Amino acid sequence: MAKKELRIGLIGCGFMGRTHSNGYNRIRNFFPELGYLPVLKTVCSRSEKKVKAFAEQWGYESIETDWKKVIARDDIDAIDICTPNDMHAEIAIAAAAAGKMVLCEKPLARSLEEAQQMVDAIEKSGVKNMVWYNYRRLPAVTLAKNIIDSGKLGRIFHYRANFLQDWTINADIQQGGTDWRMDAAVAGSGVTGDLLAHCIDTAMWLNGAINDVSAVTETFVKQRVHQLTGKMQQVGIDDACIFHCHFDNGSLGLFESTRYARGHKAMYTFEINGEKGSIRWDLQDLNRLEFFDHADDSKVRGWRTIHVTDGDQPYMNKWWVPGLSIGYEHSFVHQIADFLKSIETGESFSPSFKDALETQKVCEAVIDSANSKSWKDTYVDWTES
Amino acid sequence: MAKKELRIGLIGCGFMGRTHSNGYNRIRNFFPELGYLPVLKTVCSRSEKKVKAFAEQWGYESIETDWKKVIARDDIDAIDICTPNDMHAEIAIAAAAAGKMVLCEKPLARSLEEAQQMVDAIEKSGVKNMVWYNYRRLPAVTLAKNIIDSGKLGRIFHYRANFLQDWTINADIQQGGTDWRMDAAVAGSGVTGDLLAHCIDTAMWLNGAINDVSAVTETFVKQRVHQLTGKMQQVGIDDACIFHCHFDNGSLGLFESTRYARGHKAMYTFEINGEKGSIRWDLQDLNRLEFFDHADDSKVRGWRTIHVTDGDQPYMNKWWVPGLSIGYEHSFVHQIADFLKSIETGESFSPSFKDALETQKVCEAVIDSANSKSWKDTYVDWTES
Amino acid sequence: MAKKELRIGLIGCGFMGRTHSNGYNRIRNFFPELGYLPVLKTVCSRSEKKVKAFAEQWGYESIETDWKKVIARDDIDAIDICTPNDMHAEIAIAAAAAGKMVLCEKPLARSLEEAQQMVDAIEKSGVKNMVWYNYRRLPAVTLAKNIIDSGKLGRIFHYRANFLQDWTINADIQQGGTDWRMDAAVAGSGVTGDLLAHCIDTAMWLNGAINDVSAVTETFVKQRVHQLTGKMQQVGIDDACIFHCHFDNGSLGLFESTRYARGHKAMYTFEINGEKGSIRWDLQDLNRLEFFDHADDSKVRGWRTIHVTDGDQPYMNKWWVPGLSIGYEHSFVHQIADFLKSIETGESFSPSFKDALETQKVCEAVIDSANSKSWKDTYVDWTES
Amino acid sequence: MAKKELRIGLIGCGFMGRTHSNGYNRIRNFFPELGYLPVLKTVCSRSEKKVKAFAEQWGYESIETDWKKVIARDDIDAIDICTPNDMHAEIAIAAAAAGKMVLCEKPLARSLEEAQQMVDAIEKSGVKNMVWYNYRRLPAVTLAKNIIDSGKLGRIFHYRANFLQDWTINADIQQGGTDWRMDAAVAGSGVTGDLLAHCIDTAMWLNGAINDVSAVTETFVKQRVHQLTGKMQQVGIDDACIFHCHFDNGSLGLFESTRYARGHKAMYTFEINGEKGSIRWDLQDLNRLEFFDHADDSKVRGWRTIHVTDGDQPYMNKWWVPGLSIGYEHSFVHQIADFLKSIETGESFSPSFKDALETQKVCEAVIDSANSKSWKDTYVDWTES
Repeated sequence: MAKKELRIGLIGCGFMGRTHSNGYNRIRNFFPELGYLPVLKTVCSRSEKKVKAFAEQWGYESIETDWKKVIARDDIDAIDICTPNDMHAEIAIAAAAAGKMVLCEKPLARSLEEAQQMVDAIEKSGVKNMVWYNYRRLPAVTLAKNIIDSGKLGRIFHYRANFLQDWTINADIQQGGTDWRMDAAVAGSGVTGDLLAHCIDTAMWLNGAINDVSAVTETFVKQRVHQLTGKMQQVGIDDACIFHCHFDNGSLGLFESTRYARGHKAMYTFEINGEKGSIRWDLQDLNRLEFFDHADDSKVRGWRTIHVTDGDQPYMNKWWVPGLSIGYEHSFVHQIADFLKSIETGESFSPSFKDALETQKVCEAVIDSANSKSWKDTYVDWTES
Repeated sequence: MAKKELRIGLIGCGFMGRTHSNGYNRIRNFFPELGYLPVLKTVCSRSEKKVKAFAEQWGYESIETDWKKVIARDDIDAIDICTPNDMHAEIAIAAAAAGKMVLCEKPLARSLEEAQQMVDAIEKSGVKNMVWYNYRRLPAVTLAKNIIDSGKLGRIFHYRANFLQDWTINADIQQGGTDWRMDAAVAGSGVTGDLLAHCIDTAMWLNGAINDVSAVTETFVKQRVHQLTGKMQQVGIDDACIFHCHFDNGSLGLFESTRYARGHKAMYTFEINGEKGSIRWDLQDLNRLEFFDHADDSKVRGWRTIHVTDGDQPYMNKWWVPGLSIGYEHSFVHQIADFLKSIETGESFSPSFKDALETQKVCEAVIDSANSKSWKDTYVDWTES
Repeated sequence: MAKKELRIGLIGCGFMGRTHSNGYNRIRNFFPELGYLPVLKTVCSRSEKKVKAFAEQWGYESIETDWKKVIARDDIDAIDICTPNDMHAEIAIAAAAAGKMVLCEKPLARSLEEAQQMVDAIEKSGVKNMVWYNYRRLPAVTLAKNIIDSGKLGRIFHYRANFLQDWTINADIQQGGTDWRMDAAVAGSGVTGDLLAHCIDTAMWLNGAINDVSAVTETFVKQRVHQLTGKMQQVGIDDACIFHCHFDNGSLGLFESTRYARGHKAMYTFEINGEKGSIRWDLQDLNRLEFFDHADDSKVRGWRTIHVTDGDQPYMNKWWVPGLSIGYEHSFVHQIADFLKSIETGESFSPSFKDALETQKVCEAVIDSANSKSWKDTYVDWTES
Repeated sequence: MAKKELRIGLIGCGFMGRTHSNGYNRIRNFFPELGYLPVLKTVCSRSEKKVKAFAEQWGYESIETDWKKVIARDDIDAIDICTPNDMHAEIAIAAAAAGKMVLCEKPLARSLEEAQQMVDAIEKSGVKNMVWYNYRRLPAVTLAKNIIDSGKLGRIFHYRANFLQDWTINADIQQGGTDWRMDAAVAGSGVTGDLLAHCIDTAMWLNGAINDVSAVTETFVKQRVHQLTGKMQQVGIDDACIFHCHFDNGSLGLFESTRYARGHKAMYTFEINGEKGSIRWDLQDLNRLEFFDHADDSKVRGWRTIHVTDGDQPYMNKWWVPGLSIGYEHSFVHQIADFLKSIETGESFSPSFKDALETQKVCEAVIDSANSKSWKDTYVDWTES
């Protein structure tokens, strides 16, 4: 049973390039039953020195320094976009036009307008696509989805999530260049696109469409040196963003993200409260899911801490034995495995560009709401895929 | 060294009547050094049967069934108001006019207008007064205040608090009568006055004035039987309330309260993130405070779980030995002790009616904001007392 | 319905004198339905100054400085022994001979021989008696007992407990005098009688008789100044003690106690593992019980954190509302309430002197085992009362 | 800078074969700076079908079904032994005699006698060697070592560890065959060699030699069907084992392991209490280390929860960004990386066969102690490598 190849052209070799490359490399070891195997054909970055070292480290067969050449190559099936946000649209649209599958880092784009153009291009070409909202596929998060879908929570009243970091408190951190996440022109937004986009994707996957939002943003450090110009410049990104919202199912949502929460390196948590039960999760303890089942006998009822490492729990029959943890990187392996499987079966894959567009709508409404100090509708069209 | 008496007239003998009465009774045992001792002169409730049993249980010397008689009595120094919210104003104003000290349960009133009238009456008469925002005086919360005042957190970026309960999910719970907290006419509001008022009082004590708010409220169960009429009626209270805000010190605030968070009986938490450190606390684990000190060596830095039970920590030299917990009720004992001490020393006491008025301003702005779907200024005038 | 009085004569006014006095004082407020009410008739201590202040603080009607006079008084029903351990036997035997009820602090005695004499005296006189192993009556511990008795854990495999403190690491702490717990002549033993006795009482109550033990003890600081002589003297107590054992039901037991566990002020934990489930508890988080029920669906199975503060959980209908914590001191209130009830109903009360004797047998076997470096049988005769 | 190859011959392709193979495959990606790169030359197992699939999955260049042929091959530098315990000695001795490096799964052998023969063979041949006590190289555990070595804990009083599982409670689980861990003839012992051996290795690495032990073991299910004979046979392994001990530094040790602790899949914890501080760790929360520093200001002192995911913490500059977790498998990657580095530098590597022999001495003393119901000396010779 010879495997089919999915020949990857990776564009960008920063942090996300590493997580994706690791993911591709582990498929053979941990998902041997799949009919497709990723093949690392080429990796592209403007710096030849950097991309050479990256290719050597991760096992890419060749390198490119011009992304257009990657798209032009016949021996590439799928373009994986790991560039800063300002390149997503141009590359994705070109890749789609060339008939390549497109795998794009999140957030999909810097703006809703860009995102819409990307989705239009994808839909026009009909290519297979996905966006790297990887947290859905941590076993505990997938288990949360299963619990909700089973009806164990009943009618939902509340959804709350936050994503707290503390790495930009230091005013000496620059914007632009390698710190492109601090530069609004490149990133589009600050924590909203970088962190809240993850929270929103998970939230709508678990709890359906968000209809309207009321937000506030803050930029605590108003000026930072720009890495490329060397000059002190106004900071355009949101350092922190909070919003509340209505979900289409009638529940209230509450979201917060910041890079100024001292003591939190990457605390992404969510909690859902339903009539019959509740669940909560924390990325810093990613193998665990907490679950409260109101159906339990009242005298011995309490939040259960589920260590999601058993073979009958999502994805865990692929790894070790019960009780032994996996890490952050495994979410990417799972996403690739599921994507390969969807190619094999012809089923749709989510999160797709279309799904990511809906998340982008919420992000845009959030920024608009903060800027206008008013509620904004999102016009999200969320359908379970 | 004979003690002076503070002769108490308690009005209302529900849940709060019990917590206060217990507090008065513990002073002699745990604060023997105080110059004043509370004396339980009389307790008042409309039901003679109920008030008799209450007086017997808690050791009141006499009973009354008309609160005006309590105020008229010469042998009463202080009126303690534990009635439903709709009686606070009338009683407090009458008590002040009669020259009695006034101790009033929170929230101060059903509305800002009522609260302002009460403060006016108090200020006119100049009587000693306090409002039962008791959580400030849990040792871990007082320790939080000390940490902040010491400057260990530096510039504050974020304050977040929530107060989650789940006791009204059942649609068969009624409004009105003994369930007066469910009746907007009596309570003034739902979770905003009942729960968020606590969060706001603590927040402004720890972090200063809240300048403006943007809120959303929700009433999940729209109609409930009224206990007094026996009829199904529209529910006027907020079942849930979320708001974000700006503090006067430039930090962002985030508050949420609900009675629909399955699995949480009384989870009141707050967290403060500053440039140099952070703290967080949870009422369900009330003896502990978590503290992150960024000044710690980075290799071994982490959130500290402080078990606040040592003799050099707030109030704990009054109780047992290190490691042994106290409970919820002790907050009331501490508040009474501090109030008695302030009588002795002539120092001001906080939270006063004036302080509670500022909290009421925020509550009113929150409700207004939710109703109008817009930001509202609070006009809080917070001065550290 | 006039209440009967239980007239108390308290001997000793140290830490335990305070916890008991507080307990007596709260019965009227929190257990109004009981037919008996404790009356604080007299308190006795050798220091007249100290005992006067104590009587004033706690509300005792009179004082004594000679314990024999307390026993001789006609207006005393029950003798409560809170002296250092070396006085327990003499007072208890005299009290029993005088026909008084006897309430004795734990450990019952300094040695098994003393304890046996005390039980003999009690049985001869037939007086009502109890020993202050108070931890049984914390709500979470009582709930643990209920869970075990319901059969939810099935066959028991393991019982483990530890009691860790850190207050004697400082070599400047003295032995003797007010530090009598450090003086083997007065205390009988170190952590074995002071801390492990609690663990053993709870263990046999929950899991039945301990048949044999293998122990090790250590004295880390070999010499300390004696407070009374002012001289450096050999330390006779055990600073730390570890033992494993066989329970009569076939399960393995593991116990550890020390006063040299830096970071633990009073960490008393136990865990029981059965075929069908497990429970664990920690004194520093005393309102919670953790429970693992193997019968739960395997996909969502986990340790439940039960916040034992609901009205349908042990003792909690006496206190506040769900979610609100109680503290250490409440265990004494509950023990007094149950004792009063047992007088009213004529039912037996546990832990009795006889129960405490069985715990003393285990303590004695533990010390013998450590000294002889060999296994020792305990000859415990444990019958559920 | 061409890399040198370390050509691996893996014998055994069960669970540990998977963890090692994954480890080898990750070196290129995560430790690109190393001078040596593992090359998966061959894998050996008696079942040709099974080993073929394994080789395909993990990328081995060839297969063997006779381990002696692996040792005989010229293109193999290192023999990695992942067989059941009863084959360790024969293979290791043959490999050493053939001048191959030897990497052996733990426990080193079924008995001290076997282990001694293996060490003799290794020392005679002088080949590079290591034993897979992998837990030392989880970042939090290595950080614990660094803290201890820095002197931050001061004089050590207590070391306690346990390793709790629950997978053999079901009496239908068989012994022998693929369940060889249940078969004393193959495994040598039960939890002692399988689980406590890990605890002992970590303990002596962190706290030095264990001098003597007093143990108890239990076999809860006395008879199980043997998978190979199909007959009900006496169970020879220890289902549970508890021991206390003296460390050479004067501290007391306490160890427990069982496969009958319902609710614990793989809970390996240790805690060390020193004069100046304490640390504790739990495998189920492997990215965290808890640390108590008595030098902290007493008012804000508490256990710190260190999320060991920063670049300045052990091994974590190899992985992702602060706050993002790694898993169980990473311990093997780290061990291989350190082993490769030690080849490059010529430095000694620990844990070596000699180190594992010392752990075996403790295991043997533990079993002897349990069988004889008496204390046993260990004669450990532990020198920091």
